[in-house]
Amino acid sequence: MNPVTILGLVAATLTTLAFLPQAVKTIKTKHTKDLSLGMYCVLTIGIFLWLLYGILIGDIPIILANGITLLFCLTILSLIIRYK
Amino acid sequence: MNPVTILGLVAATLTTLAFLPQAVKTIKTKHTKDLSLGMYCVLTIGIFLWLLYGILIGDIPIILANGITLLFCLTILSLIIRYK
Repeated sequence: MNPVTILGLVAATLTTLAFLPQAVKTIKTKHTKDLSLGMYCVLTIGIFLWLLYGILIGDIPIILANGITLLFCLTILSLIIRYK
Repeated sequence: MNPVTILGLVAATLTTLAFLPQAVKTIKTKHTKDLSLGMYCVLTIGIFLWLLYGILIGDIPIILANGITLLFCLTILSLIIRYK
C-alpha cells in the first residue's frame, strides 16, 4: 500500500478513536460541566453529514470512520444533555 | 457545484467550527476537569497527520479544514495541561 494512503488511514483511525477516552471518562464520572454542548451539537451534525457524504459517494473508509465517530459523539452528547 | 460536493463542504465546515465553542468556553471558565486529556492528545496527533496527508496529496480543503481544527485542538489541549 502507498505510504501516503497508510498515513491517511492512520490519521482516520486516530481521529475516530480519540473520542473513546472522553466517552469512557464521561460515562464513569457523570460530570459534563466543562464540556461544550455547542461543540457536540455541531460536531454530531457535521459527522452525520460526513457519513451521508460517504454513503452518497460510496467511500467505505469515510463511512466506517464517521459511523464509529458518530456513535461516540452521540454517546457524549446524550450524557451532556442527561447530566446538564 | 455538485450537491454532493456542497454536502461534503458543509460537513467539513461543521466538524472544523465545532471545536470553537469548546475553546471559547475553556478560555473563559479555565475549568478542564471534565475534558479528557487522552482525547485531545490522540485527536491533535490525528489532525496533524490529516494535515500532513492533505499537504502530501495537495488537497486544499483537507489542508484548510485540518489546519484550522489543529489550532482549536492545540488551544484546548494546552489549556487542559495548564489548568490540570
